[in-house]
Amino acid sequence: MALIVQKYGGSSVADAERIKSVARRIARTKEEGNRVVVVVSAMGKTTDELIKLANQVTSRPHERELDVLLHTGELVSSTLLAMALKDMGHEAISLSGAQAGIKTDATYSRARITRIDPKRVVKELDRERIVIVAGFQGITDEMDVTTLGRGGSDTSAVALAVSLGADACQIYTDVDGVSTADPRLVPQARRLSEIGYEEMLELATYGAKVMHPRAVELGELFNMPILVTSSFNDSPGTLIHGGIEMEVRNKARGIAYDLDVAKVTVVGVPDRPGIAAAIFEPLARANISIDTIVQNASIENITDLTFTVARSQLERAMEVVEPIAKSIGARECVSDSRLGKVSIIGTGMQNTPGYAARMFSALSDQGINIQLISTSEIRITCIIDEARVKDAVRVLHRAFELEEEAEN
Amino acid sequence: MALIVQKYGGSSVADAERIKSVARRIARTKEEGNRVVVVVSAMGKTTDELIKLANQVTSRPHERELDVLLHTGELVSSTLLAMALKDMGHEAISLSGAQAGIKTDATYSRARITRIDPKRVVKELDRERIVIVAGFQGITDEMDVTTLGRGGSDTSAVALAVSLGADACQIYTDVDGVSTADPRLVPQARRLSEIGYEEMLELATYGAKVMHPRAVELGELFNMPILVTSSFNDSPGTLIHGGIEMEVRNKARGIAYDLDVAKVTVVGVPDRPGIAAAIFEPLARANISIDTIVQNASIENITDLTFTVARSQLERAMEVVEPIAKSIGARECVSDSRLGKVSIIGTGMQNTPGYAARMFSALSDQGINIQLISTSEIRITCIIDEARVKDAVRVLHRAFELEEEAEN
Repeated sequence: MALIVQKYGGSSVADAERIKSVARRIARTKEEGNRVVVVVSAMGKTTDELIKLANQVTSRPHERELDVLLHTGELVSSTLLAMALKDMGHEAISLSGAQAGIKTDATYSRARITRIDPKRVVKELDRERIVIVAGFQGITDEMDVTTLGRGGSDTSAVALAVSLGADACQIYTDVDGVSTADPRLVPQARRLSEIGYEEMLELATYGAKVMHPRAVELGELFNMPILVTSSFNDSPGTLIHGGIEMEVRNKARGIAYDLDVAKVTVVGVPDRPGIAAAIFEPLARANISIDTIVQNASIENITDLTFTVARSQLERAMEVVEPIAKSIGARECVSDSRLGKVSIIGTGMQNTPGYAARMFSALSDQGINIQLISTSEIRITCIIDEARVKDAVRVLHRAFELEEEAEN
Repeated sequence: MALIVQKYGGSSVADAERIKSVARRIARTKEEGNRVVVVVSAMGKTTDELIKLANQVTSRPHERELDVLLHTGELVSSTLLAMALKDMGHEAISLSGAQAGIKTDATYSRARITRIDPKRVVKELDRERIVIVAGFQGITDEMDVTTLGRGGSDTSAVALAVSLGADACQIYTDVDGVSTADPRLVPQARRLSEIGYEEMLELATYGAKVMHPRAVELGELFNMPILVTSSFNDSPGTLIHGGIEMEVRNKARGIAYDLDVAKVTVVGVPDRPGIAAAIFEPLARANISIDTIVQNASIENITDLTFTVARSQLERAMEVVEPIAKSIGARECVSDSRLGKVSIIGTGMQNTPGYAARMFSALSDQGINIQLISTSEIRITCIIDEARVKDAVRVLHRAFELEEEAEN
């Protein structure tokens, strides 16, 4: 009898009808003779609504209290799902993150799972019950509720699958799986039937919203294969795993994009040791996540230093950086909030020349100006004008012949 | 330094503005040099909305799951209140019923508190924090969430006050305290500055909505004085306690009423032993709460048996009783759902003749027909036509000179 962990996202349980439809899918898995553990997100926009409520009470909600507030969203959806299953005649029980034994550190709003003690989950499975676990949440050793950060339910699911030694971990979402590019932008985009952990990690980190990067990382760490598939149809989905064959790997696999990019350039920085630290340490202390950093070659000991942040953090970043720029003798700080990034990803690019050149020339053929470039071993990212990002995705999808490839 | 337990009901925390206003009241209590524990209900109509959500998923929500669902309402309000206090610069922390150590049995939807282990509450008080406890909820020894039934937050508050040895237990609500009658019906109604536990218990049980009877009972059992007062103004409120002076006791104290009464009469019942049991045991098994029971004196070994139930239970009660009536050879079952009850309450009535007579003649002077009568040592209740209940309250308030009494 196989043990299957399934995770359903917020759009899959957005209302009573969808909850009942998800319940039927879960029931089918159980009826096929499996033991089933389900991780569920909060219904639709619940989390956003709870944040709005907190903001009506205070402009700076206390993190511990906010975590307790937000974790109620998943308690609601998990109990409703358990009720729907019981209504269909199935034995089911909802468990909070705490009851499911998901222990975390105490960094509220973005806690890390330290360990899982799935005693209660196993006990309920042994009683032939379908176990519904509230995602996105855990509990500290002091019995305080924490949340794992946005997309944390994916992480809950993979972590539970690992700790239970599950035979499969299935992430149900509102798309058919992982595609070569966003199908809303590129009608020719193909669903990948499989993808490696590292490629998925880069895709997720660089803008593909299908799955949370942390969860992919966890899957890779414990070699847990993850199936990403649709809760709305019977797509076979995409299997994320480590055993991709060599031939398949030797290719560009997908295009990711992100429209939420802002850029700060500190112009005319004296190029001497310690300058980068002087700028980035205060930003880290202010809890601002820096994405790409580029420092130009210096001319006459003067250089420009550019970094990107999420658009919502631009104002705060400028507040932090401007006085520092002045104090280190830089000429000025300039910012641009209307940027986006586009990335090509594929382990095939490792040690294979020509990918970068093909990307840059495809963009330039379309008159798309590249503002910044950053690369990893299996990814090349260009930061460009926000207005051209969608064009760029289409152009690159064609340039790398992603629509034409026979699916493996 | 006094330890004060305060409880705020749903209407006192119905929106962000009211939560902030309650926070200011709590802050004042703390600033006066007290240690403060606050019990809070769910915001406004939250509980009803959650029940509606459950009913969209299933027509018979499973009790364990429903309890987990409903207890989130108090988690939300308690975290928002803690946030509001922290925003005002006060140290505050929210605790769930489980974290506050409120242990219950496993009778979901109406759990009884078995014991309280207030370790965490005391620890947080010792750290100079205001402790906000989510009302209406507890946890079983198996760590499953339970709820205490409607009005359970009053019970949470009194139980916590008892277990912490609090110096005061204050119930904040949307009325000024306990009145001689509902002020919306009787403009001359006066707030009582104090009332005995037993009188309050009868008032609460017989329709005064100010406080939940279970909580009054608990206060009486442990001799914990309870102040009922308004969260909207600075009314001195009503102190419920056991030390009422003899002189004050010797009076009718208040009028209660209830518009939610339905009556079932089994007509022509053969009067032999076991008949009452044959009727009421199946009703109890069907979980139908019976209020008043009246059996007429039998004529020629034939009697009529009448009982009242809440209107929502009438249909179910008839379904249970009709086949039984047939099987025991009764003539028929009749019901009437348009009834109400009015009660006069006061320890002064114990061993004092004349109260009942005064009540009956006041009603009859107004042409109000009495359908059933039930009494306790400190209460007389008449069941009458629903349409005349409000008249009856006004008439009795005048007949017992409740508006004229100098307040003690």
